[in-house]
Amino acid sequence: MNVFIVYAHHEPRSFNGAMRDTAVAELTALGHQLQVSDLYAMRFKAWTDGDDFQKRIRPDFLKYQNEQKHAFETDSFSPDIKAEQEKLLWCDILILQFPLYWQGLPAILKGWIDRVLAVGFAYGGGRWYNSGPLRGRKALVAMTTGGLADRFRADGLFGDINWILHPLRVGTLNFVGLDTLEPFIAWGPASIGADKRQEYLVAWREKLRMLENEAPQPFRNLADFPDPKLRDH
Amino acid sequence: MNVFIVYAHHEPRSFNGAMRDTAVAELTALGHQLQVSDLYAMRFKAWTDGDDFQKRIRPDFLKYQNEQKHAFETDSFSPDIKAEQEKLLWCDILILQFPLYWQGLPAILKGWIDRVLAVGFAYGGGRWYNSGPLRGRKALVAMTTGGLADRFRADGLFGDINWILHPLRVGTLNFVGLDTLEPFIAWGPASIGADKRQEYLVAWREKLRMLENEAPQPFRNLADFPDPKLRDH
Repeated sequence: MNVFIVYAHHEPRSFNGAMRDTAVAELTALGHQLQVSDLYAMRFKAWTDGDDFQKRIRPDFLKYQNEQKHAFETDSFSPDIKAEQEKLLWCDILILQFPLYWQGLPAILKGWIDRVLAVGFAYGGGRWYNSGPLRGRKALVAMTTGGLADRFRADGLFGDINWILHPLRVGTLNFVGLDTLEPFIAWGPASIGADKRQEYLVAWREKLRMLENEAPQPFRNLADFPDPKLRDH
Repeated sequence: MNVFIVYAHHEPRSFNGAMRDTAVAELTALGHQLQVSDLYAMRFKAWTDGDDFQKRIRPDFLKYQNEQKHAFETDSFSPDIKAEQEKLLWCDILILQFPLYWQGLPAILKGWIDRVLAVGFAYGGGRWYNSGPLRGRKALVAMTTGGLADRFRADGLFGDINWILHPLRVGTLNFVGLDTLEPFIAWGPASIGADKRQEYLVAWREKLRMLENEAPQPFRNLADFPDPKLRDH
C-alpha cells in the first residue's frame, strides 16, 4: 500500500512523534510505501488567502472557493498545496497524526484541510460522499488527548468523542469520498506514565499490522438523505 | 460595554465583512467601546511553536503547555499573543466572527484559540469552568455557513449544529469561564440572494442592540460532574 502520513506536532520527541516514528518503522517493515508531511517542520502555511493561487480570476475580490475551482481547472495552485494534493492522489491510505487541541484539530492541520481539500480537487460539481473524488482511499485518525477517556463520553465533561470527531469523519473525510477506519486514540499519554505509553505504542503497532485488512467504518451515504437538493452541491 | 471582535475572513467585501462592519457601526452608535482583531489583515500566526515565547524553560524540548505556564508567570509571551490576551482582559464581551470551514473554525481562528487561550492565562491550576480566569465575560459566536440550516440538524447531512459548536461553546468558551450567548448564524449567505442577506444584517443589528440585556445560555457547571478528579485539572 501507499501510505501518506500527515503529522502535526512541533516536538519530535513527543508521544505523537513516537507514534509517527512507530508508524514509519512498522509500515516500512511491512513493505508499504510511505510519504510523510511533517507540517511544523515544513512550516506549512496554515491560513487561506490569495497566495494559494498562482493566477487569480479576480485579484481585487477574493472568493476563495471560486479561485480554488479555477486553480484546479488551470493547474495553478501554489506549489505547497499542489504537492500535498499529489501525495493524496498517490496514497491508498491517509493517516492524520495529531494531538487534540481544544477538542479540535491543531490549527496547522486544520489549515492543511482548509487549503488542500479544495473545490474541484476534493469535491464539487456533484462529486461528494459516494461520488467524492478521493473515493477508493481510506483515512485513519491517530490522535492523543489531554484528558482521559471518561471525559469524552456523552455524559462526560467534554461530550462524546464521536460528536467531536464527526465534523472530521463525516463532514470532511467521508465528504471527499474517503472511507474511515476506527480511530486510534491514546488517552492522556502525558499523564499515564511510561509503561502505559509503551502499551499504547504496542497497540498502535498491532493496529498498523492489521491495517490492510481492516473493514472501514460505515460510510455516510447520500442515498440516506432523501432531499434531491443534496445532490446539487 | 467593552466589545472585542475577532474577525476571520480574508475578503472585506464578503458577507462576513458586512457583518463585521455592521457590528462596528451599530456598537459604536450604541456608545460601546470597541477593539477589532482582523486576523488575516494582521497576518496572525496560526500555528503554535517555540516562537510563541520570549524565554524558554527548555529550548531543546518543546512542551508547549509548560512553556505557556512559564510565559504567563514571567510575562514573556510573544508580543502578538500578549496583545490579544490584553484585549480579552479588557473586554466585557468577545465576538467571534467567521465562516464555518469544514464544520469547524477557519485555521487562522483556531490558531488564535490555540495560542491566546494559554495555560495560566485562560485556565489551569484548578481554574476552569465556574472558576475560569475569564469568568464574568460573555462570548458570542457570529458565523456563516455554506449549506442551509436543514443540513445542520441531527438528521441532516452534517449533523446537529449544536454538536458541531459544542467543542467551541463548552470545550473552549465555557472552559475558560466565558458565558455564551445564543449564536447568530447566517445560513448559506452566498446562495440566498441580496434581499435575504440584507434581512440577515437587519436581524444581526437587532441582536446587537439587545446584546447588553441578553441572558446567556446555560453554563457547563463542574458541580454537575461528580468525579472529584475533574477539579484537579
